[in-house]
Amino acid sequence: MFAIEFEPVGRRGEFPSEQSLLDCARQLNVDLVSVCGGFGICGRCKVQAISGDVGEQTEDEKSRLSERELAQNYRLACRTHVRSDATIHVPPESLTAPQRMQVEGLELAVEPEPLIRNLVVRLSPPSLDAPEADDQTLWAALLTQHGVSPGGIDFRVQQTLSSVLRKANWHVCVAIRETEIVALGDPSSRWLGLAADIGTTKIAVYLVDLESGKTLASRGLMNPQISYGEDIIARLAAAEKSPQNAAKLQSLLVEALNEAVESLCSETRTVRCDIVDAVIVGNTAIHHMLLKLPVRQLGMAPYVPAVRSAVDIKARDIELHIAPGAYAHLLPNIAGFVGADHVAMLLAAGIDESESTVLAVDIGTNTEICLNHRGTMRSVSCASGPAFEGAHIKFGMRAAPGAIEHVRLTGDNLGIQTIEGKPPVGVCGSGLLDVVAQLRLNNIIDGMGRMGRHPRVRSSNGGLEFVLAETPGSETITISQKDVRELQLAKAAIRVGIRALVEAEGLSEDKIDRILLAGAFGTYIDVESAIEIGMLPPLPLDRFRQMGNAAGTGARMALISRSMRGKAQQIALRDGYIEVGRIRDFNRKFAESNSMTKFIA
Amino acid sequence: MFAIEFEPVGRRGEFPSEQSLLDCARQLNVDLVSVCGGFGICGRCKVQAISGDVGEQTEDEKSRLSERELAQNYRLACRTHVRSDATIHVPPESLTAPQRMQVEGLELAVEPEPLIRNLVVRLSPPSLDAPEADDQTLWAALLTQHGVSPGGIDFRVQQTLSSVLRKANWHVCVAIRETEIVALGDPSSRWLGLAADIGTTKIAVYLVDLESGKTLASRGLMNPQISYGEDIIARLAAAEKSPQNAAKLQSLLVEALNEAVESLCSETRTVRCDIVDAVIVGNTAIHHMLLKLPVRQLGMAPYVPAVRSAVDIKARDIELHIAPGAYAHLLPNIAGFVGADHVAMLLAAGIDESESTVLAVDIGTNTEICLNHRGTMRSVSCASGPAFEGAHIKFGMRAAPGAIEHVRLTGDNLGIQTIEGKPPVGVCGSGLLDVVAQLRLNNIIDGMGRMGRHPRVRSSNGGLEFVLAETPGSETITISQKDVRELQLAKAAIRVGIRALVEAEGLSEDKIDRILLAGAFGTYIDVESAIEIGMLPPLPLDRFRQMGNAAGTGARMALISRSMRGKAQQIALRDGYIEVGRIRDFNRKFAESNSMTKFIA
Repeated sequence: MFAIEFEPVGRRGEFPSEQSLLDCARQLNVDLVSVCGGFGICGRCKVQAISGDVGEQTEDEKSRLSERELAQNYRLACRTHVRSDATIHVPPESLTAPQRMQVEGLELAVEPEPLIRNLVVRLSPPSLDAPEADDQTLWAALLTQHGVSPGGIDFRVQQTLSSVLRKANWHVCVAIRETEIVALGDPSSRWLGLAADIGTTKIAVYLVDLESGKTLASRGLMNPQISYGEDIIARLAAAEKSPQNAAKLQSLLVEALNEAVESLCSETRTVRCDIVDAVIVGNTAIHHMLLKLPVRQLGMAPYVPAVRSAVDIKARDIELHIAPGAYAHLLPNIAGFVGADHVAMLLAAGIDESESTVLAVDIGTNTEICLNHRGTMRSVSCASGPAFEGAHIKFGMRAAPGAIEHVRLTGDNLGIQTIEGKPPVGVCGSGLLDVVAQLRLNNIIDGMGRMGRHPRVRSSNGGLEFVLAETPGSETITISQKDVRELQLAKAAIRVGIRALVEAEGLSEDKIDRILLAGAFGTYIDVESAIEIGMLPPLPLDRFRQMGNAAGTGARMALISRSMRGKAQQIALRDGYIEVGRIRDFNRKFAESNSMTKFIA
Repeated sequence: MFAIEFEPVGRRGEFPSEQSLLDCARQLNVDLVSVCGGFGICGRCKVQAISGDVGEQTEDEKSRLSERELAQNYRLACRTHVRSDATIHVPPESLTAPQRMQVEGLELAVEPEPLIRNLVVRLSPPSLDAPEADDQTLWAALLTQHGVSPGGIDFRVQQTLSSVLRKANWHVCVAIRETEIVALGDPSSRWLGLAADIGTTKIAVYLVDLESGKTLASRGLMNPQISYGEDIIARLAAAEKSPQNAAKLQSLLVEALNEAVESLCSETRTVRCDIVDAVIVGNTAIHHMLLKLPVRQLGMAPYVPAVRSAVDIKARDIELHIAPGAYAHLLPNIAGFVGADHVAMLLAAGIDESESTVLAVDIGTNTEICLNHRGTMRSVSCASGPAFEGAHIKFGMRAAPGAIEHVRLTGDNLGIQTIEGKPPVGVCGSGLLDVVAQLRLNNIIDGMGRMGRHPRVRSSNGGLEFVLAETPGSETITISQKDVRELQLAKAAIRVGIRALVEAEGLSEDKIDRILLAGAFGTYIDVESAIEIGMLPPLPLDRFRQMGNAAGTGARMALISRSMRGKAQQIALRDGYIEVGRIRDFNRKFAESNSMTKFIA
């Protein structure tokens, strides 16, 4: 029996040598992706041996892994057996979606440089001989003990100042932001920050230790505004229709954030009033709805935001329940359809620093794309629709247990991988992309996306559909011709955006040195599949990088670093926005991009 | 018939030469004080002839008016008859209390230097070619048209930004405070400010044009907290007892301010959202209750304020309904019982600039006194009680129509002057002071305040009382021995305070070069009466100056001038506070000061 540890998931156990790493992982509930079911065919269960004897690489592995991967001790878990105690690194892309969400990006590659200073002071209590006011006593101590000159005290902090000082026996911890005291606590207080990325469909919330910069916990949740419409335009229309709607759309968002805060605090045994700073990002419409800004002008030409600059408000002004004196910082927007979340993504990608030609794509219900070509940055926003989120797809679903997330078809042999290995109940975005790519690879759909003959293709309600999974007693899961069409529209929108940016610089797509894929969907997709159906240009795979929730990462970077906030503002100012409505030959480009073929434009 | 104009009340009419100026004034509802009823005896109906032929001064006038007054064309209205068209100036002290309140201090001797800049800009609306966000469009116009660099926009202004810009057809008036836009309006907007002086008993509210510095209108109203106790200690106890009480005590104040704003706006045909700045003063307890600050430590030794520094908050944070983005500024406090209203009074008095020895006395339920001796400033607060406001006095009442406000007794001959000349219904503070002084002058009370014999003194319920007014069908108005005792306690508290300050500088009272009397009561009293009973030291009358509501004036000065706010902060920092509990030989001094005799200490 050998001790095996899976990192960074943090699971360990003792296993015999006969058991493959894949089986060991499964036993420890490490949700490794395995499309072929453990036969060395799909090449998805990649892991990296960090330490220990894991034997020689097999022929299957040599054909599925790249030269670089082989050199770095990458293995297919289904082909690997340990011969000693071992530590195994599981890269995020080998985990199924929910587990990947949990582990990714807990560490930030940014030096903490928070706006909030944490100062512990001992005060001299007032006496009849020196009946000094409490605020003066506090500032005097801050000056003599930390050299901090008197500034302001948040109004809510003023309201509890006298009782806190006395309860803490004149020995307190002060959270000071620039020149303003925003919170007071007992000397053991640890100040926390909140980062939130509010997407059209999903919300990611992070609790961060401001001093160390470490993410203590995170939560993913659905955007509850979805009851007002899956796409943002429907919600803008609702908000515009009545002030009641606008108020409800706002409170839905804030209540979701407040609930997430509650559960993050309970998980980490912290209290919400120690959260003394917050950074929130979202697209421009979300940003405006959250701040109760007017949205009318967002929904009609020329589609301008009310506010583009970064916004600092008291969190209480939007009923966000963290420390009463805390600020919330919203990163700047770029344009009506390129928001603060895009800025956060670009910040996380460090795209502004690149000297080469870099494309960053944040795929979602709206897909924002930015090209930095030798310092000139331009972004575009494409209405790619909610197909990737499972909407408008007959058996579409979100990335949840039982969702088919990866598919391989070799002849009649169909391999599927569901999230957590649960019996299949539907198809999530990356599964849909895989299916259609496999159908194309196997010539079951043609270059125009028309479905043809195959043993698994059947007629239904006058249309054709491909059978993905048949389970006795359950409904048969299929992908229909209509589903293929939905995907085509979505991917064409993205490709037109990429082409518009590239063309604006007088380039062709093969001049892109690097493509960064962000967002939940962009991170989980099989890039080869995306290339196969023409969603992404056919560039060498090593030019692609999948980044995880880069908007959430950018929000956290801005949370813990004053410089990063400044950088975000610079990015927003530098970024030149291309309005989709003004893309030349849009219709022709869209038709071309609609085809199911690899091409360079 | 000659045209006569009374200034600054602004009344005019045509009258024959036979009619005395006093009768002309009465006919025009100019409420001139006249205690003796127009017989040239009391010398209270002083007016100044500005232009026109008003004849020679009479012997009566020569004996009642000072050399300086005679040289400056002062006259007694009851003795004067015009011989041509004339303009007559009525000094505030010759008006009865309510009318004096209306006219006094509408002009400030301060150059307007408001924190709010008023900028009109024309914007370029966004287009598909230049789809710029509304905040950027606004800042761009401010930069090119006024050289103003981008700063912040108040959160509530952001929320209406887009609709206001479009409604005003991209031509707007901007209220900018330091670097923050706090209000937007159409180009004709005139920005207003609100000044409020919240006393324990009375509230004075002023509406001011920020650009000209002119006071457009003012309101005096009762402090509705009075239902929680006449003195401030009772209200502090109530606030401390439960958060509900504290909330109620706060909302009572703010509702009173909001109602005053409503009526000031309706009177001046302005709107509350054009009020873009506010300055509020009050004693420390009022200040804390208004800001919902903790009051527990104010009520127990060593009686310290939670907050002493000036406070800037959004008016909306205390539910004060002016422009949604407006700030409210509260002047700094000095100590637990010497508050922002005292600072405002000192600011209005310019006491800090004096090189001589100046005493400023703001008489109220609490009386704050400050001595500036060659640049050293020290203040003390005395619990003088509500007797001056009419409380605890059998026929006591506030300065309202029908209140006896001035009294003269010559032998058996009693002259009384009621406010607006209405039939007497009670005695207000200045009336009480006059009665007791007249009783003392006529030896009806002795040096210890004991009442003796006189045709108007009668027995009642085992005690003595002096009959002031008998009207058939109405209750007889009297001043009782107990009333005299109440006044003794009040005036003794004030005199002890004066003595403590003078003694702290090693001086005697006759070294005081000037005594400034502020507050409604201090302004309306007869200084000779106050000296007669030993409330004020017996110094030459020309060392006294009655200032009107100096706290309200100081608040308005701070409202229209950035320098004045800085000066207020300096005054608060410089002022050395003397705690009453630490006055040496307090009991002996109090007993001495309780006597009804003139003396220098």
